[in-house]
Amino acid sequence: MIKISGYAAKDAKSPLVPFSFERRLPGDHDVQIDILFCGICHSDLHTARNEWKHTLYPVVPGHEIIGRVVKAGSQVKKFKAGDLAGVGCMVGSCGTCENCRDNEEQFCTGGTIFTYNSADPNGGVTYGGYSKAIVVNEKFAFQIPANLDPAKAAPLLCAGITTYSPLRHWKVSKGQKAGVVGLGGLGHMAVKIAHALEARVVVFTTSPSKKEEAHRLGADEVVISNDTDQMQKHAGSFHFILDTVSHSHDLNPYLNLLKRNGVMCLLGAPENPHPPVSPGNLIFKRGSLAGSLIGGVRETQGMLDFCGKHNITSDVEVIPIQKVNEAYERMLKSDVKYRFVIDLNSLK
Amino acid sequence: MIKISGYAAKDAKSPLVPFSFERRLPGDHDVQIDILFCGICHSDLHTARNEWKHTLYPVVPGHEIIGRVVKAGSQVKKFKAGDLAGVGCMVGSCGTCENCRDNEEQFCTGGTIFTYNSADPNGGVTYGGYSKAIVVNEKFAFQIPANLDPAKAAPLLCAGITTYSPLRHWKVSKGQKAGVVGLGGLGHMAVKIAHALEARVVVFTTSPSKKEEAHRLGADEVVISNDTDQMQKHAGSFHFILDTVSHSHDLNPYLNLLKRNGVMCLLGAPENPHPPVSPGNLIFKRGSLAGSLIGGVRETQGMLDFCGKHNITSDVEVIPIQKVNEAYERMLKSDVKYRFVIDLNSLK
Repeated sequence: MIKISGYAAKDAKSPLVPFSFERRLPGDHDVQIDILFCGICHSDLHTARNEWKHTLYPVVPGHEIIGRVVKAGSQVKKFKAGDLAGVGCMVGSCGTCENCRDNEEQFCTGGTIFTYNSADPNGGVTYGGYSKAIVVNEKFAFQIPANLDPAKAAPLLCAGITTYSPLRHWKVSKGQKAGVVGLGGLGHMAVKIAHALEARVVVFTTSPSKKEEAHRLGADEVVISNDTDQMQKHAGSFHFILDTVSHSHDLNPYLNLLKRNGVMCLLGAPENPHPPVSPGNLIFKRGSLAGSLIGGVRETQGMLDFCGKHNITSDVEVIPIQKVNEAYERMLKSDVKYRFVIDLNSLK
Repeated sequence: MIKISGYAAKDAKSPLVPFSFERRLPGDHDVQIDILFCGICHSDLHTARNEWKHTLYPVVPGHEIIGRVVKAGSQVKKFKAGDLAGVGCMVGSCGTCENCRDNEEQFCTGGTIFTYNSADPNGGVTYGGYSKAIVVNEKFAFQIPANLDPAKAAPLLCAGITTYSPLRHWKVSKGQKAGVVGLGGLGHMAVKIAHALEARVVVFTTSPSKKEEAHRLGADEVVISNDTDQMQKHAGSFHFILDTVSHSHDLNPYLNLLKRNGVMCLLGAPENPHPPVSPGNLIFKRGSLAGSLIGGVRETQGMLDFCGKHNITSDVEVIPIQKVNEAYERMLKSDVKYRFVIDLNSLK
């Protein structure tokens, strides 16, 4: 076993603190990665504070990981020592169910093994990227395009794939109008990716102050979502709307904007439910309300390659790990443009 | 003008009564049809009683019409006097909007003209099939396969296309499991059509007494929907679920049954909203909650041809028009297997 230092939440109420733990030695198919950067995702906070009621303490969060391979097992094909590598939300899946066979490991019915807070088939619980190093089967490690800044690329491993996957699944493309609700960690990635897909991108926000920012990120238009007149002008005109907001809100004003066969896709699971959906908002245009969860392994590599090609990364604020608790508080106030990334060099 | 006798509701509270009105003489593109049979759809009752708050009185309901062409305008190509013809929910659309150009006139953004209770561009309000004759542009009249009993085929014009269209849109086919929620006028058609599409058909019902009936109609399996154990056995296994129930109910137990990329489609717009949808039921399988509305003109003819080929009609109880008010009361109690059809020969 390898001794690893990291940061963990030991219960739902306490701040994250330094924590020492062990990882397995790399097997034949594993790579051992010294972590350089790890993004802070809202899921980290949800889990640290047990807001989804399934946290196994102590928990070491972090699933937007970029680091350098220091050891590669004898059977490893994709990596050699010295390569940059990324790890996202998953580190394993059954490999045999229909969804795994279709390269959609995020929906593994045998049980996806998440990067942290999952039962680890090697014993114990999985620990995430708020730590110095990780050992992972190479299947769940990704090649990072050389032109991307590793600190800014780290959030692609969750925020990137979470927005890329539905935009691709529903074939958002040139000639289409795509909406993005919310301009945070997920939303700002959605704008960049939808723009690169050549859709007309419309950002919905309640803050007129975000207008300039949205345009800078790639939005063609910004709609103030609590302005009924502005919203009504777009009625029946959207092919796709990606809702990145994680708190309860009324979906009907957005469903009203879909055109025939339009899809609104939810990425967040709020603690309190959204108000009821009006069936008429679906029936009279054959609309759909859908949901999406990260993406499969193959698609994640495809997303990274796409981002490399289009030079897309996250807008980040790099912090030392000692500021993680402060970052959580600021994230709750949306006081970050747009993703915190921990520089693991700060962790001794 | 032609003088026509029919039955109308004169206000929301009174029973339907005999009513005399006028229709236009058939123009160059019109057919005049002597109505033989007209199905009774739940929408007729909703409209007669102003439950959707947009009824223009007096209203002559009826949009599941089959009759015989007695006059065909000089430019009419599809019909000649003596032919059987059907009329469904629509008698006109703008013809120029994107949806009309795509043969989806039911979503006409210029304003679909419905068979009854719509402003009629020829003046006044459209009157439906609870009447002796109708005059309609041939585009909105359909050819009826000769092998189908006209009385039993009448409900295809609404109940048939309303269920056929989503089953085809979402490509329900052999090797797939398709659910049908509710076994009424719509549900029994959905079972027959999904069976003909060679899907494995599962009927959800709260009434164990409907089991035998469901199998007779073509169901491969019947699930008692308030039996949690029975429901759980089907978790994550459905490609498609068609919800034909028109009153408020919890959709989440059904969404839980969808597999990856599965779709649940609503056909009804209840007076009171369904309870909130849990986003997790969509996110963790990339599921969709959708809605669908009848079908376009081209698809309606396709549905009739499909039903002709597979010898599919509705199970009906034929009544004289004098019993229409009694039929409404029985329909509210689901006391019909499965569709009332008015024999217009009873109307003098």
